[in-house]
Amino acid sequence: MGRLTGGDPSLLRRINSAVVLHALRGGADCPTLTDLTRVTGLSRPTVEGVVEGLIESGLVTEAAPDEGEARRQGRPARRFRFRAEAGHLLGVEIGPHRVAALLSGLDGRVTGAGSREVAEAASVEERLERVRAVVADVLRRSGVPRSSLRAVGVGTPGIVEADGTVRLCTALPGWTGLALGERLRRSFRCPVLVENDANAAAVAEHWKGAATDSDDIVFVLAGLSPGAGSLIGGRLHRGYGGAAGEIGALHLLGREVTPETLLSTTGEPLHPLDEQAVAEVFTHARQGDEGARAAVDRFIQRLVHDVAALVLALDPELVVIGGWAAGLDGVLDPLRGELSRYCLRPPRVTLSLLGEAAVATGALRLALDHVEEQLFAVEGSVTARR
Amino acid sequence: MGRLTGGDPSLLRRINSAVVLHALRGGADCPTLTDLTRVTGLSRPTVEGVVEGLIESGLVTEAAPDEGEARRQGRPARRFRFRAEAGHLLGVEIGPHRVAALLSGLDGRVTGAGSREVAEAASVEERLERVRAVVADVLRRSGVPRSSLRAVGVGTPGIVEADGTVRLCTALPGWTGLALGERLRRSFRCPVLVENDANAAAVAEHWKGAATDSDDIVFVLAGLSPGAGSLIGGRLHRGYGGAAGEIGALHLLGREVTPETLLSTTGEPLHPLDEQAVAEVFTHARQGDEGARAAVDRFIQRLVHDVAALVLALDPELVVIGGWAAGLDGVLDPLRGELSRYCLRPPRVTLSLLGEAAVATGALRLALDHVEEQLFAVEGSVTARR
Repeated sequence: MGRLTGGDPSLLRRINSAVVLHALRGGADCPTLTDLTRVTGLSRPTVEGVVEGLIESGLVTEAAPDEGEARRQGRPARRFRFRAEAGHLLGVEIGPHRVAALLSGLDGRVTGAGSREVAEAASVEERLERVRAVVADVLRRSGVPRSSLRAVGVGTPGIVEADGTVRLCTALPGWTGLALGERLRRSFRCPVLVENDANAAAVAEHWKGAATDSDDIVFVLAGLSPGAGSLIGGRLHRGYGGAAGEIGALHLLGREVTPETLLSTTGEPLHPLDEQAVAEVFTHARQGDEGARAAVDRFIQRLVHDVAALVLALDPELVVIGGWAAGLDGVLDPLRGELSRYCLRPPRVTLSLLGEAAVATGALRLALDHVEEQLFAVEGSVTARR
Repeated sequence: MGRLTGGDPSLLRRINSAVVLHALRGGADCPTLTDLTRVTGLSRPTVEGVVEGLIESGLVTEAAPDEGEARRQGRPARRFRFRAEAGHLLGVEIGPHRVAALLSGLDGRVTGAGSREVAEAASVEERLERVRAVVADVLRRSGVPRSSLRAVGVGTPGIVEADGTVRLCTALPGWTGLALGERLRRSFRCPVLVENDANAAAVAEHWKGAATDSDDIVFVLAGLSPGAGSLIGGRLHRGYGGAAGEIGALHLLGREVTPETLLSTTGEPLHPLDEQAVAEVFTHARQGDEGARAAVDRFIQRLVHDVAALVLALDPELVVIGGWAAGLDGVLDPLRGELSRYCLRPPRVTLSLLGEAAVATGALRLALDHVEEQLFAVEGSVTARR
């Protein structure tokens, strides 16, 4: 049974430190001690002690007084700011066709980015080498030493265990069974967090994409190997075994149709990972080619089925369509029409705002979450009571 | 931001009272003050004060000393017990064919039960009258005055709003738009909580049925109008608009087949709510009738499809099949086979243990949850931090 023990001075210090840090990060620009005392409700000596400790740790620094104050008589009040540059974070996407990385400071603002293509058939070693090259490139161009990294988030297809091992992945050669987290930890001296790509993308759209105003969302990563990620009450729903949203098999049930068959205009299925061929079908459809149009219609019908299954099971407020469909202007109307026909409470449907950047952005957010949990550990456990 | 304020004597009293009540309900039979002091870690004067307060409120009473103690010399230590009989709870099912009610004390142990058939075509007034009759009968036979009821839980088909209004229900005539909670509150002077029937059944199987060892479950209420309820981390997942698990429309997508068509052996669809006819098809199938066997196979295939969609979306640890399927011995093996074929991480699959009683049992549990939230309000908010 949880009990309030009270009176632990180290716990109190941590709470106070987290409260002050929160005020420094979220509130007014460069608050004074008086500002911090007012916002936090703590005593002035407590705030002073906490701020000194944060300065020693490198997380906070004294800011220059602003010009207006400097001109006034008397000594200007000291002002403080959170040092977002005290550490850095990486968000990495490892996909079938490309790897990408985003770099940010401790405030999550992106300050560097890079990506490279990679062959679908690339081996594990080739793909990881490509990841290392992209990361090294982004760090070098940004002038950030590797030792400044506090956490690395990674988004990749497949079912991912909590320790970063890929339990099952049909999209990348050699990925099933790979201890991806462990392999990547050799390149970094900070925590590496591996997440399913659609889950990462859902987190990203909620953070700074199409779903910032909703806590109950389904993100559908449309593609030849479709996946989905969902947030329930603002929290990622991974499922009991990390396989929630792995809807790729759904269309097989009773119909045995796959995207690569549906999207073929020749009678021969497309190669399961040949997204270039898919893009051509979409382009031809937009240009009025009837066969391509019919193929795209078949694909949309299939997408509707996948989305409807997710919506009926989860009842989200909002569905965000990403992956290929982000380039499919015509997908939303048929999707809305069909969902309103089949769902007792149809959700809103919208396209991804982050597009290609969604997976890496979500991976970055997961790294940021990890660091914030450490910085605000005590506050986190307090606010979780709400 | 949540802050620990400390020092509020009324809050402390409530915490201490909840802690002592919890120890009295959950721990050893009839503890002494010494037992309670040891278990709770509170001081003896505090425990004494709290116990006196609980006795005054009627929730606790002094128990007779046991015989061994009575024979020993000296005054035996006073012993105390929780008075489960200090209040009562009802769990009510309102279905297409029958209404049922379960009665319990404040410990949730069932002490009375009753049910009546009701016509599918019954009007709202007829159905509610039947509910009132069943409840009156159960109370009378159990010798419990209506004034002793502390909460009433109700399980019924459809999408149910938080205030107990049925937003949408295709199974019961007149049910869509009915302010069911408000109507029932006229018959009771205590809170009435209305919940979707499959959701209630999921709660029931988790409480005392087939799912007591798992917190991540999907319960499938197989039937002509199928539904599902799910628990995620032990909590009911209702969805953003209360429609999660309303999978009835799923089979329409792309296939336009309904259970009443699948289960027909005549070419003519069964009546959508004629569960008697369904039972006959199942019986004939068991007796070796080929047409009936084929119909049941078609139905199982459809059930597999529904369950697979839920499993792919939610990734539960365990799927519990209730409703008709509880009478279908043969459903589990094909279901397991198909799920292992289509799901990346197939869940365990089992049949409902509660059968017909699942919905009313879950409704009773929801009433109990409500009362426990009141009794243990403070404790609840403390333990929720874990």
